[in-house]
Amino acid sequence: MNQTEVTMVRIYLTEGDHQLRQLLDFLHQQEQVRGVTAFRGIAGFGRSGKAHESSLLDISLDLPLVIEFFDLPEKVEQVLQDLNKLIEPGHVVNWPARLN
Amino acid sequence: MNQTEVTMVRIYLTEGDHQLRQLLDFLHQQEQVRGVTAFRGIAGFGRSGKAHESSLLDISLDLPLVIEFFDLPEKVEQVLQDLNKLIEPGHVVNWPARLN
Amino acid sequence: MNQTEVTMVRIYLTEGDHQLRQLLDFLHQQEQVRGVTAFRGIAGFGRSGKAHESSLLDISLDLPLVIEFFDLPEKVEQVLQDLNKLIEPGHVVNWPARLN
Repeated sequence: MNQTEVTMVRIYLTEGDHQLRQLLDFLHQQEQVRGVTAFRGIAGFGRSGKAHESSLLDISLDLPLVIEFFDLPEKVEQVLQDLNKLIEPGHVVNWPARLN
Repeated sequence: MNQTEVTMVRIYLTEGDHQLRQLLDFLHQQEQVRGVTAFRGIAGFGRSGKAHESSLLDISLDLPLVIEFFDLPEKVEQVLQDLNKLIEPGHVVNWPARLN
Repeated sequence: MNQTEVTMVRIYLTEGDHQLRQLLDFLHQQEQVRGVTAFRGIAGFGRSGKAHESSLLDISLDLPLVIEFFDLPEKVEQVLQDLNKLIEPGHVVNWPARLN
């Protein structure tokens, strides 16, 4: 079975960041990565210093969003460096995976 | 703490593929893997050649779907070979993990 | 690019478990992990012995939930040991990742 090494990435935002559209456009048009999907969570906390004090009720008005994508490791490394200019530290996780 | 080595799998579809029910039945009844979950994304692109030219508006009518499952590595390897006959290349990602 | 080694965790529940709020409170207030997000799936099976016999229709009344979080490996190891007292075996998966 042929498998390609890729890097998976998950970016953690909230709706209140108003960055979803900008980041999707960035990943699509500028970086042209393959396989981008955005998800909306139903609850969450901890993405900003403030959120740690928020109640779950407050957070429900500012739902978590996750943008997931994968691509070749060297491509992702470059994308991550570009993302660092758009997203504050501590919100982007990556790990190695295999693509069938 | 006892941990079992497993392989995590994520399969990327869109609603327009009309494959969700078929794949869930396949994983459930035929392959009998444990721990299958399907998620609907809120936006995405890049799953087909065509999607790269689609605007986000178009894509919202054909939302992304992800099927996630995990099982023992040797079991997953066999499932992935069977999935290759049902899913076009470039839509299935897997990585090693530990199950508690 | 500075990267921190973290451990990603995904906990698989269903709405019928009525554990979501308890676990979010536990992870937030007691364990104080960073970056917790909860997602609702649209279909699933296999989380309990019974679910294997359920039809997809039945399951839609008891939708899958996933709680995802990440933190430093030694921190997560301790959290996982505590989670073992709250969650039955076979529902918590973890893997190493890098945080930007």
